[in-house]
Parts: sequence; C-alpha cells; structure tokens
Amino acid sequence: MFQKNAWYVACTPDEIDGKPLGRKICDEQIVFYRGPGGKPVALDDYCPHRGAPLSLGHMKGENLVCGYHGLEMGGDGKTVAMPSQRVGGFPSVRVYPVEERYGFIWVWPGEREKADPSLIHHLAWAEDPEYACGGGLYHFECNYLLLVDNLMDLSHEAYLHPNSIGQPEILHVDPTSHMEEGSAVTSRFMNNIMAPPLYRAALRGHNLADDVPVDRWQICHFYLPSHVLLDVGVAHAGHGGFEADPKYKAGGVVWDFITPETETSTWYFWGMARNFCPDDKELTEQITKRFSVVFNEDREMLERQQKNLERTRGALLNLNIDSGGVYARRMIEQAIAEERQSERQVA
Amino acid sequence: MFQKNAWYVACTPDEIDGKPLGRKICDEQIVFYRGPGGKPVALDDYCPHRGAPLSLGHMKGENLVCGYHGLEMGGDGKTVAMPSQRVGGFPSVRVYPVEERYGFIWVWPGEREKADPSLIHHLAWAEDPEYACGGGLYHFECNYLLLVDNLMDLSHEAYLHPNSIGQPEILHVDPTSHMEEGSAVTSRFMNNIMAPPLYRAALRGHNLADDVPVDRWQICHFYLPSHVLLDVGVAHAGHGGFEADPKYKAGGVVWDFITPETETSTWYFWGMARNFCPDDKELTEQITKRFSVVFNEDREMLERQQKNLERTRGALLNLNIDSGGVYARRMIEQAIAEERQSERQVA
Amino acid sequence: MFQKNAWYVACTPDEIDGKPLGRKICDEQIVFYRGPGGKPVALDDYCPHRGAPLSLGHMKGENLVCGYHGLEMGGDGKTVAMPSQRVGGFPSVRVYPVEERYGFIWVWPGEREKADPSLIHHLAWAEDPEYACGGGLYHFECNYLLLVDNLMDLSHEAYLHPNSIGQPEILHVDPTSHMEEGSAVTSRFMNNIMAPPLYRAALRGHNLADDVPVDRWQICHFYLPSHVLLDVGVAHAGHGGFEADPKYKAGGVVWDFITPETETSTWYFWGMARNFCPDDKELTEQITKRFSVVFNEDREMLERQQKNLERTRGALLNLNIDSGGVYARRMIEQAIAEERQSERQVA
Repeated sequence: MFQKNAWYVACTPDEIDGKPLGRKICDEQIVFYRGPGGKPVALDDYCPHRGAPLSLGHMKGENLVCGYHGLEMGGDGKTVAMPSQRVGGFPSVRVYPVEERYGFIWVWPGEREKADPSLIHHLAWAEDPEYACGGGLYHFECNYLLLVDNLMDLSHEAYLHPNSIGQPEILHVDPTSHMEEGSAVTSRFMNNIMAPPLYRAALRGHNLADDVPVDRWQICHFYLPSHVLLDVGVAHAGHGGFEADPKYKAGGVVWDFITPETETSTWYFWGMARNFCPDDKELTEQITKRFSVVFNEDREMLERQQKNLERTRGALLNLNIDSGGVYARRMIEQAIAEERQSERQVA
Repeated sequence: MFQKNAWYVACTPDEIDGKPLGRKICDEQIVFYRGPGGKPVALDDYCPHRGAPLSLGHMKGENLVCGYHGLEMGGDGKTVAMPSQRVGGFPSVRVYPVEERYGFIWVWPGEREKADPSLIHHLAWAEDPEYACGGGLYHFECNYLLLVDNLMDLSHEAYLHPNSIGQPEILHVDPTSHMEEGSAVTSRFMNNIMAPPLYRAALRGHNLADDVPVDRWQICHFYLPSHVLLDVGVAHAGHGGFEADPKYKAGGVVWDFITPETETSTWYFWGMARNFCPDDKELTEQITKRFSVVFNEDREMLERQQKNLERTRGALLNLNIDSGGVYARRMIEQAIAEERQSERQVA
Repeated sequence: MFQKNAWYVACTPDEIDGKPLGRKICDEQIVFYRGPGGKPVALDDYCPHRGAPLSLGHMKGENLVCGYHGLEMGGDGKTVAMPSQRVGGFPSVRVYPVEERYGFIWVWPGEREKADPSLIHHLAWAEDPEYACGGGLYHFECNYLLLVDNLMDLSHEAYLHPNSIGQPEILHVDPTSHMEEGSAVTSRFMNNIMAPPLYRAALRGHNLADDVPVDRWQICHFYLPSHVLLDVGVAHAGHGGFEADPKYKAGGVVWDFITPETETSTWYFWGMARNFCPDDKELTEQITKRFSVVFNEDREMLERQQKNLERTRGALLNLNIDSGGVYARRMIEQAIAEERQSERQVA
C-alpha cells in the first residue's frame, strides 16, 4: 500500500535525454519523455493501436513515435498521427501529472485533478550554487517501508557499514525523535569522536585535518509520501557541530527519494548535496562512488529482510531507535487512510 | 487457445539426428526421434516406469532407451523391453501422429484418429530444386497470435527493421486484404523505389544492380493452424514486379511456421526459399544470418507487447493495416470453435 | 510431506566455522552457529527486532549478533543484549534441537520435547580411525523421495553412470530386497566381472591389480527419516566378495543423508568412508572428485523427473528393482501417518 495522490521522483533528466523511458511507479507502467516545449510528459506505456510499449519507440520532435507501427502520440495522451490513418477516433491513453523541478522529474501516480505542483517538496539546496550535488539510482527488491525504516534509524550504520560511515560511537548516543508540521524527525549528536572513514575523506576533500576529534550529527527528516532528507556531517570538535561555521564542517544534505515500484520493489534515488568545494567534481564523483558500496550493503540486508517478513508475516518490534520510523509509518498510514476515505466519499 | 487438431511444425530433421528431442508443442510435452524404418516418432515424453523424460535417453536401433533405468520404448508407445522385466503389462504412453515432409517434422497434438497427413500444408518450393532454402528456429516468450499479427502486417518493417528490410515507402502504400479458400491474404506493392539494405544484398547476390529503382512486393498468406507464407522480393522497376521474369528478380518465399509452445510462448520456424542462385550456399548463409538480426528486433517488441497485454487485458485497435491479421484471427477462432463443438458432440 | 520429528543432517562443521549459516530444512528457515561451549545452536533465522535474517550477522563470543542493528541472540533463543536497550521483554525465537555427532550437525525440525539425541543414526565408521572419509553437499531441485528411490535402486548406474560406476553386469543380477528391524535393505552381488572405471581407480589406490576379475557388491540400507547407507565395493574374485579379507577389497560405506529443504528441493549430503589407505588424503580427494561427476548426472535426471511428475501427477510403476524404494517409501509413509496421528491426539 502506498499513497497514490502524491509527487514521487520518477527519474532524472538524463534518463529522458532524447529518448523515452519506461518505468513502473506505484504499480503504474509509465513512459516518460520530453514533449511539447521540452516539458516532461508521463503516459500509460501502452500504444492504443496494439498495446506495444511506447517506451520502445523514439522521439519525433515533441511527439513520441511507437516503435512498432509508427503511431505518433501527443503529450495529452491523444494520438496525433499514424501513417495512412485517421486517428480522431483512437482511444486516449492515461496522462499522469509530471513536473521537472530541482533536477528531478516528479510524477503523480494518482488522481490527476488533485495534482498540485506546489505540493512538490521544496529542496532549497537544489537551487543554491553553493551546493554540489551527486547521486545515483538503486533498485531494491523490497517494500519501500523497509527503506524508510532503514533511513530513519541510522544506528544500523554501526553494524552494516562499519568500514565507511559506521562507528561504535553511534550506539553510545540515543536518538531523539519528534513530529513537526508535516515531518517526522529523528536526530543523534555525537560529540568529540573520531570521524569514520568516509567522513575522513570528506574532511580531507575540504582541506580539513581528519585526525582530530569531531562533532558528528545525523538529523533525519521524513516527508510524505516517502522522502527522507538527512542533515549529516562532522565539524572539528568544539566549534558548534551542526551549527558550526562552514569552514570547520564537512557534510551536507543526503536525499533519499524512495519511490515504490510495486509492493515488493522500490526505486531508490539517493544523492548528497554538500556545501563545501562545490566546484570539485572529482570530489563529487569520489563521494558518490564510496556511498554506492554502502547501499549495496543495505540492499542485501533489506531484500533478505523482505523475504523473511513475507515468510513469517511476523510482528516488528518498535524500540526507541525505531521511533523515527514509527512516526514516519504513522504519517504514511494516515495519508493512505485519508486517501481511501476520500475515494469512498466519491463512490 | 490454439487449434489442437492440426499439423504443426515440431522440429527440423537435424534436431533428431541420432538422438531424441524433447519439445513442448501446444502444451503437450513430447519426445521426437527416428523410430522404425527411420520414420519420426512422437510420444509423451514420460517413461512409464518412473516418469523420467524419455528425451534424456538414447537410441538403440529403432527404439528409444530411457536414460534412467533402460526401459526400451517402441514407436507405438508400448514398452518393448527392459532388463530383467516382463513388460507386457506396462502402461502405454500417448502416441502423437507425426510426419516428415518438406524438410520438416510435423506433429498433430490433438485427437489421433483425426490426423490426416494429406492435410499437411503443401509447400511446392520445398520439393523444387530451383529453390535454395535456409532458415532457423526462434523461441518467443509471447502468445502465437502476436506473431501472426506481426507477419500479416508488414508495415511494422518501416519502424522495427529500418536498417534491413524496412523503408518509409512501405507506409506510402496501403495493403489490401481478402479471404481466399482456406487462406487470408494481405498484400502491398511498392513500385519504382530504391531497395532497402537486405534486398540490395540479395540483388547483388543475384548479380543484379542494386542502385536502380525496383518494384517491391509483399504478399502474405495465412493458413491454419498458424502458418504464414510470404511472397516477397524486388525486381528491377518496370519489368512486372512480382510477375517479372526471374532474371530481373531477387526474392522468394519466406516461411513462418508459428507453433504454440504454451499460451505465452511460441516456437517460430523461419526460413527463406529463393529461386535464384540455388547453389550458392554462402548466399544462403548470408541471408539467413542477416534475417536473424531482424527477428531479434521482433522478439523484444513482441515479448514486451505480451507483458503489456497481460497487464491491461486491453482491447486492440483493428486498422486497415491489421486487416490481414483480423482475417487470420477470425479463421483461428472459427477453427477452435468448431473443434470445441465437435468435442461437445462426442461428450 | 516429510517426517518432522526426526534427526536430519543440517550441515557439516566447516560450514559454521566462526560464522553463522542460514539453511532451510523441512520448510523451516534456520540459522546454525556455534554457541555456548562451542556447541551448535539452531534457531529461527529471524531477528525479533525487525525480522532481519540472523544468518547475515556475526559471532561475538558465544552469541550471534544481528548484522542490522546489533541485537545479540543467545543460544536459548532469548535476546541477550542490544545497544541501549532493555531486552527482557523481547520475544524469543524458536530453538531447534541440534547435535554435533559423527562429523555432522544434526537438526530436529519438529516438536522440541520429542527430540532424543540417542535417536541419531549410529555411524560406526565415523568414529573408526581405520576409515577415511570424504564427501560433499549437493542441492537438487526435486522431492527427496526421488533421491531415496535413486539410491535404493542402483540398476540406474548402468544407464546413467556408464563411465564411472555403471556396467552392464549390474543388469544381469536381480536385486533382492527385504525389511529388517528399522531398515529397508536391497542388495545385489555380481561375481567374477571386471570392475568399472571408478572401482578400478580404487583398486589401484589400494595397490591391487585392476585388470583381473572381481566380485562386486551393493548393499543398500534405508533408515528413517531419509538416510541411505550403501555397502559397496569390489574384491578380487573368489576371495569372498563383501566377506573377503580387507587386503583383497576396495570399497567402503557410501553415506547419503537426504535432507528435504522444501517439497520440491533437497539437500544431499554424500560421502564415502573407505577402510583402506585411510591416510592417503590425495586418494580421498580423487574419489570425492570423481563421484561429483556422478551426482551431476543424477541431478539432471531427477530434476527433470520432478518436473515431469509435477506435470502429470502420473502413477509410478513399481518393479522388482524398485522394491527397495517401495519398502523405504512405506516406512516413510507410516512414520508420517504416526506423526499426524500423534498430533491429532494432542489436539
């Protein structure tokens, strides 16, 4: 179960550069491409002629041409033309609201009339030249909630990622969690510790000593439908930690856009926006590459956890470390319940 | 759904050369081999002893020996011998009518008593020394009807095979379709055009200029249960096209024997019989090789179309270009309905 | 269907050397590791915190630490500790009776209170320094009964393993089968024949001539739940065969511990205990390696037989060669029936 009336990250602009992309989002099989005015279009990935996937086609100007028999599809889901055919009576295909913003293509897999672009989550750093952004896309064979749990409880870093971002000190500090307007927040502050390997590299990237104590912070924000944004980083100890002057810090915002594909598989858009050395592309690449190791460690665990939960339908234990995830799941459940309530009223 | 009381191509003789072959045809798991008198035999691929697949066995003269415990099976589905056993009471396995003709092994997966070898589709070119034949076997993960549609509407060549047999001029001429006695026919004639790459190579193979205008034809015949035979080719323009003297022509008959494996998978026997340079084996090999590229393009599209249709159970649009396929599907539906009617009368 | 109240071989000690092992046995997903006192522990492979597989964790002394969030599991299925948590109220996970004996880890997947270690099948050779043991583990995608049948009817060697242990003479002698207390036995004695390749190598390994006639024996014992133990070997002809003085013999005991994974897949622990040249490790390795070829021949046949039986649900023919398997299946059926009877009485 997932919220359908919501904006999800569907893809990145490079994925529809000059060609269509087929991707399933929240159980909807959708083709994405750049249509009229270069704006993204999202349609049912189904040619109204014979059911071929439109995503196997190619672009002809602003229209998408089916690769099987040349039906030309417009951005409004209506057939524009087809060789030797009058296409006026052709059935339309479903159009999904879609927006390009902050370097992502966002899609609304639910009811079209409810799609309001102003509801797209605001990402200040994405428009700020002081930030450098780098990231990637992963496919996990698990329910999206397991990824939400994972990111709202970073205590797992100590065990699952001991050679990169994990360290025993994470376990010495309890996280605190609370609800804010529209957000579940969980945070942990670890002061006067040595930085773990991946943050040492970040310190060096910022020309900061990596062999002195630091203050480390993890502030995890969950937003509907299933976005997790992390303020993470380290600062040389005693300068204020998260509040320190940027010249003492190496950190930034980690984005985790978690987009359900089906009930048991998930698209995971990850990236980091850092506000130091924004022009150092090599550093961006290096950080992105090192994090990809981390996510493959998560993937094995979460995919096996998924199988275990399918097998047992077992209850989960909610501890204090899980409180961030518990708040997030509560927000999701409530949003889904409201969506269903609203559907019933219409029906 | 497929016609079961019909002759399908099951395999080619080389596939049962000295060894048995296991293959599923119309949901029947069958073992094929050469039995008494070198004639092909088709049996349930099931050893009556312990259910081992007979196709894992080996030949002993005209009998098939099970590879597990040595049961010796006769061409009549009766056990001939087994070490230290009296086999008189062993249950028989189902025998399928099978015939070797025209360079193919044909099988009748339905009621044995209705199998009449004279119903095997006649292939004049297969017995004509003026023709050279070359082809291959493909396995498609789609319903067989999608292949019938594909071959009865060659307008797709313009989009799916633009670098081999496709060309825009295909779209400038509407096909015409009609029913004949026992056949659905759709054809398209394109006059005074330049030949596409694969036909240019064929012209050169026939020592004909490939840089002059040609007349091109596509005449598609559908026959029950699911055979499509295409008269295709080009002739130097103005000499009569399909009716031109062979010395101006490069073309022939393309055979497409479409044999359902299951509801969602298909054996596809393809080949070309050309009536020029019949002794040029290198040319045969070259044409066969180039066509294999074409079929892999078809495969991706049809397998993805299959998935899309499974997902949506969507209606298909029948345009004029689909009329050949519509006639063919009508013939198939009627044949299946008659088959069921006849079953009910018996029951 | 399989007996659950019984001791099955689960793994070998090397598989839990310093790390946990996840394995499904009789449909139970179990984690095995060395716990308190170095003794093996078998638990539900499910972390009570969030359902992660404990087998992805690591050892910390005698406890197993979950690799996701560090929950520390004790050998009694109770959580010992977890960073920053009071674990007293954590739910326990199921504990399976487990024993280490004869070089194997044995598990009881059924009712805990019925598990009696004295019921573990006695293996005299495993504790006898005169024997050298070597073997391996195979995974077969078939029901375990097909492996029982296979091993209780070695006539298949003549067909399935003609280049290693098979020979036509196997078919010239009928096996005899009977029931003993707690065992089904089938045997075959072939006198004054030449040894097949694998036994010729064994003769040479024992510094015995391999080009003289031998007496060969196959004595197959089935024990519940699904163990098959074979006395097999050859002796120079005329010295008494199975009863001959060891100096004329090359043979030993082949163990086949057949452990159901699911209804359609099986763990197959195989090995040979030979009582000649027990210190020749190279010979042990060579024999083990040559047998692995044999089992891959079995695997293909049995996996295809499984598919055929799923397709047809066909009856099996029980011939004299199958009598050993028939007795074995009868023992299994009776044991399962008794198990169910006992469950009903409790309920």
